Order: sequence, then structure tokens, then C-alpha cells
Amino acid sequence: MSVSHASVHPIDEVPTTEGGGGGGGDQNNNNNNNNNINPPPRVRMKDIQGMPGTSGGLCLRVAQFIFAAAALAIMASTSDFPSVTAFCYLVAAASLQILWSLSLAIIDLYALLVRRSLQNNRVVSLFTIGDGVTSTLTFAAACASAGITVLIDNDLGSCGQNHCVQFETATGMAFICWFTTVPSFLLNFWSLASR
Amino acid sequence: MSVSHASVHPIDEVPTTEGGGGGGGDQNNNNNNNNNINPPPRVRMKDIQGMPGTSGGLCLRVAQFIFAAAALAIMASTSDFPSVTAFCYLVAAASLQILWSLSLAIIDLYALLVRRSLQNNRVVSLFTIGDGVTSTLTFAAACASAGITVLIDNDLGSCGQNHCVQFETATGMAFICWFTTVPSFLLNFWSLASR
Repeated sequence: MSVSHASVHPIDEVPTTEGGGGGGGDQNNNNNNNNNINPPPRVRMKDIQGMPGTSGGLCLRVAQFIFAAAALAIMASTSDFPSVTAFCYLVAAASLQILWSLSLAIIDLYALLVRRSLQNNRVVSLFTIGDGVTSTLTFAAACASAGITVLIDNDLGSCGQNHCVQFETATGMAFICWFTTVPSFLLNFWSLASR
Repeated sequence: MSVSHASVHPIDEVPTTEGGGGGGGDQNNNNNNNNNINPPPRVRMKDIQGMPGTSGGLCLRVAQFIFAAAALAIMASTSDFPSVTAFCYLVAAASLQILWSLSLAIIDLYALLVRRSLQNNRVVSLFTIGDGVTSTLTFAAACASAGITVLIDNDLGSCGQNHCVQFETATGMAFICWFTTVPSFLLNFWSLASR
């Protein structure tokens, strides 16, 4: 008979506050305080490698920092970059990316050392917005610089009086930096959506 | 006493196959076949305005189509756009965006007319990947064109012998087009992650 009915399934109660509940399931003592010897882990969602507070996440942040720093250093080493607005913008975007990635790398390192999970709604929201903004700015700077370098090299053919190699290398570094920021953003956004 | 225990909560059984289960909860007849007069709706997840198959999603697709077509038409109306690679790339990216947005607009319109939900895992995955690729290409083209137009206008000051107004308008249209593709991508990605 096709009738809708309410199924009853047992659900394991998950502790929702830090340090509360859980632990000592088959103990009949009156240990009512929360100062357990082995407190329950604070991880409230699945930690995928690459998310904040994981070693994969730390690797991504370090890679972002290295490539952004390389893009900045190579672009700043040319004498004539201030004459093109897009190259100045690349330097600014790479600087912002360096600051952001370095801060997040330090937070990740701290979280790994004290074994603390960063899977908290507010923290992940903040990281997602920051990653979205910095990765968009870095990508925009890389694309603008790529447009200029292709114009100088292919369309005008005036690489003789310009530092084409440095411009192209800096642009490539900015693109690689963007490739390493996208997984961070997507993983953070995914973890924000999947709770 | 702080012991972990399994709570028992009643759960409403949700029909997971099309047309199966549901309907006639308090009927005691032997209506065992699935040919109900009012079949259960096929929506398996919350439809947020802007997702595929909603009127908001259709509006976003139409807006994407209009702005991409405007960018393409304005850029193609200049005689010297083929001399700059970035402008050719803008035309190519806008063409791809037009094809994609038009296809999705037709699918959305069909889904709205037959009242069919598009919230299917494979369909949403496909839409998410397509939106991600087209929006990234459009944004890259817009940024590259912006780099060139700023170079021509501000850095070189040679707007006299170039169609600066058309170039800037086409770039602006491409940016607005990107602004309308981002909500589509993020909503699709969100609905993919939140199941």
C-alpha cells in the first residue's frame, strides 16, 4: 500500500558546542564536568586536504606566497614598469596576494601546531571572501599584463626596446599564483555550502 | 550524567525516485499504482532564484546574452580590432558566451514552460563547469582589453588615431557580462555542494 509514513531512524547525537557532550559513553560514574582527559575532537566537518588548517592548505598558501613574490620581484626589477598602468596594477595585486597568503599560511601553521580545526562558519566565510577577492584581483592583473605583453611582443614586435622576457615571466608567475588560489577558494566555498 | 546516547528523531520519508512514494497519506484505499492525479513535485532541493530552471536564472541568462552580444557587436564594429590580439580574444570569448547563455536560456525557458526542475546532479555539474569556464574566459578577455585600452588612453595618450570609445564600451560590456555570469556560477556551485 502506497502511503506516506514517518520513518524512525536512530541518529548519533553530535556535540555542537566545544568540549560539550560526547566521551565516556559506557561509563556509569558521575563525571559531570567537561574536563575529560581525552576531549572530543573539535572537527565538526570533514577536513579535505587543501582546506584551512590542513597541511595541504598550508602548501597551497606557501605556493601562492612564492609565486606572488616571484611575480612582484620580477616585475619590480624592470626599470620601465611604472610607465604601464597594467604592470603597476600587477605589482599592487601581487603585494596584496603576498600579504593575504602569508597571513593565512601563519594561521594554518598555528592551527596545525596546536591541532585546532579552523572549520568554523565565520572563519570559513571570511577566508572564502578574502580568497575570492584576492584571486580575482590577481587574475585580472595577470590578464591585463598578458594583454600588454602580447601587444608588445606579437602585435607591435617591439621587444627590442622593452623588457619582454621579464614582463612575460612576471605575468606567467601571476597566472601560476592564480592557479594555486582557485583551489583554496573553491574548497572554502564548498565547505561553506556543504554544512 | 554526561553519557553519549543515540537520540531517536522521526524523519519524514522523502521520495527519492521520480513519481515513487508520497501522496495519499491518510487514504486507506488500495491505490497501489503511481498514476496519481497530483504527482509529487520533482524538486529535490530548494530552488533559489537564479538557479537553472527558475525565472531569476532565465533573467540572468538573458542579461548575459545581451551584454555579451553588445560587447561583440561594438568591438566588431571597429575596423582595427584584428590588429590587437586581446581584442580578437574578446570577440571570441563573447561569441562563446553568447552561444552558452543562449543555450541555457532556451533550456531554462523550456524548464519553466513544462514546470520541470533542473536540479539534477549531472545537469548542475555540467552547468557549473560550463559557467566556470565561460565566465573565466569572458573575465580574462575583459581584463586584457581593459589593459590595452588603459595603455592606449592613459599611458600613450593616442586616442586620436584609435577607436577608444568603442574599445572602452566593449570592454565595459564584457565586464558587466561577467558580473551577470558570476551569480549563475556561484549559485550552481552552491547547489552542487549543498546536497
